[in-house]
Amino acid sequence: MTIKIYGMPYSTCTARVLATIAEKEVEDYELVPVDLSVGAHKKPEFLKMQPFGMIPVLQDSHLTIYESRAIARYISDKFESQGTPLFGKTVKDKALVNQWLEVESQNYNPCVSSIVYQLVFAPMHGRQGDETVVKQQLEKLEKVLDIYEAHLSKNKYLAGDFFSLADLSHIPYTYYLVNVAKKGDGITSRKHVSAWWEDISSRASWKTVTAKMNAKV
Amino acid sequence: MTIKIYGMPYSTCTARVLATIAEKEVEDYELVPVDLSVGAHKKPEFLKMQPFGMIPVLQDSHLTIYESRAIARYISDKFESQGTPLFGKTVKDKALVNQWLEVESQNYNPCVSSIVYQLVFAPMHGRQGDETVVKQQLEKLEKVLDIYEAHLSKNKYLAGDFFSLADLSHIPYTYYLVNVAKKGDGITSRKHVSAWWEDISSRASWKTVTAKMNAKV
Ligand SMILES: N[C@@H](CCC(=O)N[C@@H](CS)C(=O)NCC(=O)O)C(=O)O
Ligand SMILES: N[C@@H](CCC(=O)N[C@@H](CS)C(=O)NCC(=O)O)C(=O)O
Repeated sequence: MTIKIYGMPYSTCTARVLATIAEKEVEDYELVPVDLSVGAHKKPEFLKMQPFGMIPVLQDSHLTIYESRAIARYISDKFESQGTPLFGKTVKDKALVNQWLEVESQNYNPCVSSIVYQLVFAPMHGRQGDETVVKQQLEKLEKVLDIYEAHLSKNKYLAGDFFSLADLSHIPYTYYLVNVAKKGDGITSRKHVSAWWEDISSRASWKTVTAKMNAKV
Repeated sequence: MTIKIYGMPYSTCTARVLATIAEKEVEDYELVPVDLSVGAHKKPEFLKMQPFGMIPVLQDSHLTIYESRAIARYISDKFESQGTPLFGKTVKDKALVNQWLEVESQNYNPCVSSIVYQLVFAPMHGRQGDETVVKQQLEKLEKVLDIYEAHLSKNKYLAGDFFSLADLSHIPYTYYLVNVAKKGDGITSRKHVSAWWEDISSRASWKTVTAKMNAKV
C-alpha cells in the first residue's frame, strides 16, 4: 500500500518527513499537496486527519499520523531494515539520538523557527517581521550554538560518530535560516558547527528535498 | 548498577521521569538532589553532564542522558518487559503514542508551562508573574483543550484504550496548573478531559511522586 504524505515540500515540517523518507530509501510513497494559500489545511476533511490544521500528515493503510517528528519515527521504525539506521545500532545510540532530538525540539527549534517565521514566512503572508523578536532569538541561539560547538568538537554528529534522525531533524529550519533568512553567521562562524552543517546539508537525501522545494516554490 | 536521577521531585521535568520509573516498577534507582536555590545546576561538574544547566539527568553505568522525555523513553525501552507497557503493544499503538507525545511537547506544554511559570515559579523566585502572558496562554490552551475534548470523547486515553507515556507526560505540569496555579477550569469544565485527568492523576505512580514532592517542598 502506497504511503501518502499530505504536505508541501517548502514546508519545513514536511521537508523533515521527506528527508527521512529519502534516508530510509522508501520508494512507494506519494506526496499529496495541501494548498495552504487557499486554506486547504483548515477545511473539515483535513481537520478530520489533523485537528490542529497543520501539515504534514501521513496515511499508511488504516493508520493516520501527524506531527513531523512522530511521522519520522514511524518511518524509521517501519523501514528499520533498510536505508540509514537513523537511531544508530545500540541502546546507547538510541538514547543519545532521543536526547538530541529533544534538544532540537526544545532548545534549537524554538529560536530558529521564530527567526525564520519573522524573516521569511511573515513577509510571505504580507506581514512585517518583528525585528525585536529576531534580535532576542538570535541572542538565545548564540548560547545554544556555543553548546553545539563544544559538543561537535568532540563528536562528528550529535549522537556520536553516526548521522541520525537528530541531525536530520535540524536540517529544514537551518536551511531556511542560512539560505533564505540569511542569518547563518552563528553557524558559519563556528568551526565545528559549520563543518557539521556542510556535511549534513550536502547529503543526497537533502538534495532530493531541495530539488522538490525549488520545483514547487 | 543503580540508576541515578539528578533532580528534585518538585521539578515538573524530574517528576515526569519519576512517574515513568514508578510505572515501569524500577526499584534500583537513586534520586540525587540538585539544589537549584544555590545554583548547583550551573556548576562546572553539573554542566559536564548537562551543558544547558537543567534538571533532570540520568546516569546508568557509563551512559549519561538528559531531557526528561528522552530519559522517559530510555527507561521505557530498558524495562520494556516489566511494568506498564508505555508504548502500547503494536506498531500502530507506538505511532500514536509518539504522535501524542509530540502534541504534548509542541502544543500543550508551551501554554501550560508558561502559565505555571508566571503564576508559580516566577513568584517563587521573587518575581511578579506577567498577567498578559497568562491571559494569552490560557486562551491558546482553550483551543488545544477543545481538540483534546473531542478526541477523548472517542478514546479513553490519548493514544487509544491504554494508558501510555503520552498521557503520563501531561501529568506534572497539569498537576501544577490545577492544584497550585489554580487555573484548572479549562480541564474541569470539559467532561471528557476532566474524566481523563481524574483517571491519570489518581494512578498509584503519580501518588508516589506527589508524596515525594510534598515531603521535600
Ligand atoms: N509540530 C508540527 C508543526 C507543523 C507546522 O507548523 N506546519 C506548518 C507548515 S511548516 C503549517 O501547517 N502551518 C499552517 C498553519 O499553522 O496554519 C509538526 O512538527 O508537524
Ligand atoms: N526540556 C527540558 C527542560 C528541563 C527544565 O526546564 N528543567 C527545569 C526544572 S523543571 C530547570 O532545571 N530549571 C532551572 C534553570 O533553567 O535554570 C527537559 O524536559 O528535561
